[in-house]
Amino acid sequence: MTAPVPDGAFVSGPLALRDAALFTDLYEITMAASYFREGMTGQATFSLFVRVLPGGRAFLIAAGLEDVANYLQTFRFSEEAIAYLRSLGRFEAGFLDFLRGVRFTGHVRAVPEGTALFADEPLLEVTAPIIEAQLVETAVLNFCHLQTLLASKAVRSVMAARGRPVVDFGLRRAHGADAGMKAARSAFLAGAPTSSNVLAGLHYGIPPVGTMAHSFVAAFPREIDAFRAFGQAFPAHTTLLIDTYDTVAGARKAAQVAKEMEARGARLGAVRLDSGDLIALSREVRRVLDEAGLAYVRIFASGGLDEEMVERCVEEGAPIDGFGVGTRMDVSADAPYLDMAYKLVQYAGRHALKTSPGKETWPGEKQVYRLRGSDGRFAEDLLALHDEPPPPGEPEPLLRPVIRDGRLLDPLPALAASRERCAAQVAALPEALRRIKDRGTYPVRYSDRLVALQRAIVDQVTRLEGWAPQPNPFS
Amino acid sequence: MTAPVPDGAFVSGPLALRDAALFTDLYEITMAASYFREGMTGQATFSLFVRVLPGGRAFLIAAGLEDVANYLQTFRFSEEAIAYLRSLGRFEAGFLDFLRGVRFTGHVRAVPEGTALFADEPLLEVTAPIIEAQLVETAVLNFCHLQTLLASKAVRSVMAARGRPVVDFGLRRAHGADAGMKAARSAFLAGAPTSSNVLAGLHYGIPPVGTMAHSFVAAFPREIDAFRAFGQAFPAHTTLLIDTYDTVAGARKAAQVAKEMEARGARLGAVRLDSGDLIALSREVRRVLDEAGLAYVRIFASGGLDEEMVERCVEEGAPIDGFGVGTRMDVSADAPYLDMAYKLVQYAGRHALKTSPGKETWPGEKQVYRLRGSDGRFAEDLLALHDEPPPPGEPEPLLRPVIRDGRLLDPLPALAASRERCAAQVAALPEALRRIKDRGTYPVRYSDRLVALQRAIVDQVTRLEGWAPQPNPFS
Repeated sequence: MTAPVPDGAFVSGPLALRDAALFTDLYEITMAASYFREGMTGQATFSLFVRVLPGGRAFLIAAGLEDVANYLQTFRFSEEAIAYLRSLGRFEAGFLDFLRGVRFTGHVRAVPEGTALFADEPLLEVTAPIIEAQLVETAVLNFCHLQTLLASKAVRSVMAARGRPVVDFGLRRAHGADAGMKAARSAFLAGAPTSSNVLAGLHYGIPPVGTMAHSFVAAFPREIDAFRAFGQAFPAHTTLLIDTYDTVAGARKAAQVAKEMEARGARLGAVRLDSGDLIALSREVRRVLDEAGLAYVRIFASGGLDEEMVERCVEEGAPIDGFGVGTRMDVSADAPYLDMAYKLVQYAGRHALKTSPGKETWPGEKQVYRLRGSDGRFAEDLLALHDEPPPPGEPEPLLRPVIRDGRLLDPLPALAASRERCAAQVAALPEALRRIKDRGTYPVRYSDRLVALQRAIVDQVTRLEGWAPQPNPFS
Repeated sequence: MTAPVPDGAFVSGPLALRDAALFTDLYEITMAASYFREGMTGQATFSLFVRVLPGGRAFLIAAGLEDVANYLQTFRFSEEAIAYLRSLGRFEAGFLDFLRGVRFTGHVRAVPEGTALFADEPLLEVTAPIIEAQLVETAVLNFCHLQTLLASKAVRSVMAARGRPVVDFGLRRAHGADAGMKAARSAFLAGAPTSSNVLAGLHYGIPPVGTMAHSFVAAFPREIDAFRAFGQAFPAHTTLLIDTYDTVAGARKAAQVAKEMEARGARLGAVRLDSGDLIALSREVRRVLDEAGLAYVRIFASGGLDEEMVERCVEEGAPIDGFGVGTRMDVSADAPYLDMAYKLVQYAGRHALKTSPGKETWPGEKQVYRLRGSDGRFAEDLLALHDEPPPPGEPEPLLRPVIRDGRLLDPLPALAASRERCAAQVAALPEALRRIKDRGTYPVRYSDRLVALQRAIVDQVTRLEGWAPQPNPFS
């Protein structure tokens, strides 16, 4: 049933965006028009990185590369897009003709999805004729920002749950259709084994889970009628939601239905708590179940959870076997955006940076070298220029060639492989970085050559442009 | 160039979501299977509302109805969707056959997009056979939540700017492709006249704006070369970004280029500040421009802005003529989600509610009546049962029939009309509600019949199910 893809569309799983080359800030196109007019055809390198991590994050999980690769390989202005740009009355005919032929012909070096990263470390670098590299900025940022944001948030609930399953429940309040899909994908990448999102099951192979809502219980004359009906319909996958009216009373009814199911040779799988004091209630519910000889019935908790609440439940020893984490994970509620930027670091062989207060950047094409300690754990990163020799030891260069001359060099890893990489990365982080609260910081060194280069360019810019550092009261 | 829409796809502007009936939490489908098995074919009414407004919001702007209407009218399970559900191994063949024929045949009553709303007031009510009304829950919530969230945030920057234009700049860090489009649409609905998002120009008719980024300046040997090139390329639409290195030095170069443009009969439109102390810098830049006889050159400010910073600029009299508001608006950074719920309020003539602590709901189909004071402003709302007589005065009933028997009764208002409604609604709010800080609260009364009904049902549930109020330590 796959439909033909419209001209100029970007496709990501079940989602297609028509005229995706216009999914951009207008200034990318006005800048391109000026580059075109000036005959600026040199190679530019842009670096995508996060300037400062939000307070609650000790590290990032890089994600979004698959969408970037699909986008770049299919980049083109449709005839409809060209006609629209013409209608704006500000672009010359020659430029519009030129746009019709623009494809992405450049190179991309990137860290694999699932890699742990820190501030200033590039997720990817794009090297291409400046017009191409500029035109793709907005989409590249949008795709990588969302998925890195969500994976970096989801991994915290996974860490907090210490092996108990975390289920992505956030589809309804994720920010739209794309975010709903990417929330499931990012949470899976970060270690959540399942999601409530059925479409994510179809398109990403993430096992979907879910049983009943309060409306189901309320639609029956009595709560126990709802429980009985559900046990009949799903003898092998029954989780009963027991907090519609009173959680402990609901647990007693669930126990009664579980005994009725036993008599039929079926087994109640779990009960779910979705409100109230989950720690205290889980203990009361566990007692009700155990006293009924239902030690096999698991307790699942949800309802406004985030990693701090999950951690509290785990630390206090609440008898909760799994967590449904929803809205707060899928919108990254405590830090709903990253200070991610896509910055020109080199043009036509000349290094570039900006010195805007609070937004200074590092010039030049880069490499991130990761060094491990004798315990096998990550010990230090070195942010260096791409063309300088690697440091001693056996550093892992994190940025790898992904696209050359506009074409993918090798198929990207499957989602399951990226997920394994993410788990291995998290396991190799220093212990203090895996804490939910009072997190440690990770040492990222800047190579001597990089520091010297930045200093030289700042000096040059200061002489040329009259730069003076200014405080930023809003930062 | 419109491509054929795939079977079972949902289309929203440039975005198509294949197999949209699976864009749902699995429990909607498991509940449907149980309703099917039980022969529960009665009419259900679900009410979509926000339980509690976030701290920073005095009111909501309802949005998302257009997507809901498109989704409901095209709702169907594709063959691919049915095959996927079969592969899960938990649904009976008879139910899957039934799903193949499911369409949305119900009714929707809704408030028009752009309407100001308060806690507990329904954005819409869906009345349909319970399986249909249940299956659409997740998507209806996702669509209305996102757009209501973003419109309710954007209107605050518009209010704070007191007539100065607010431009949506947030595409790059909006949560994905759908959110990027809806951020532009929601901001326009809320009063922002333009957006940087070009695709929103093509699909929603929102005028796109934008000029240059720091990368443009950095790609030239000297800042002034970049300014000159841009002035040549866009003599009629030139805004120069002057903070790449040093804002005041940049302003002097912009003034020089403006004089060169004057000599050619062109005019520099504006300069943009994107970092630093915008209030102090705008004053210095204004002085530089005025001293050069460039009183006509406007100053535009951006860079991490939100409504509180916009208000501060305006209140302190900073000479800023327009604001680019980006990330914090497009992710609703201070409140990135709403406590929005879709709750069963009636099934087969029986009223329903839940009594989970902190999540108690109001039963029954409802109407919101809005009463104006003698000054023409909104004075009070009455939340009442749908079938009770309206209160005295000339109340406006906010919920209106939109879909009957699955079909749209009348075309929905164009976006421009919804935008006018929004502006009129905001203008009619009590003054205290339009403050950015120290906001007032709006009186919403609950009708005597509604209160009595809730009490009666709670009594009944308490008798039947053993309800006891519990504190929620997480709420």
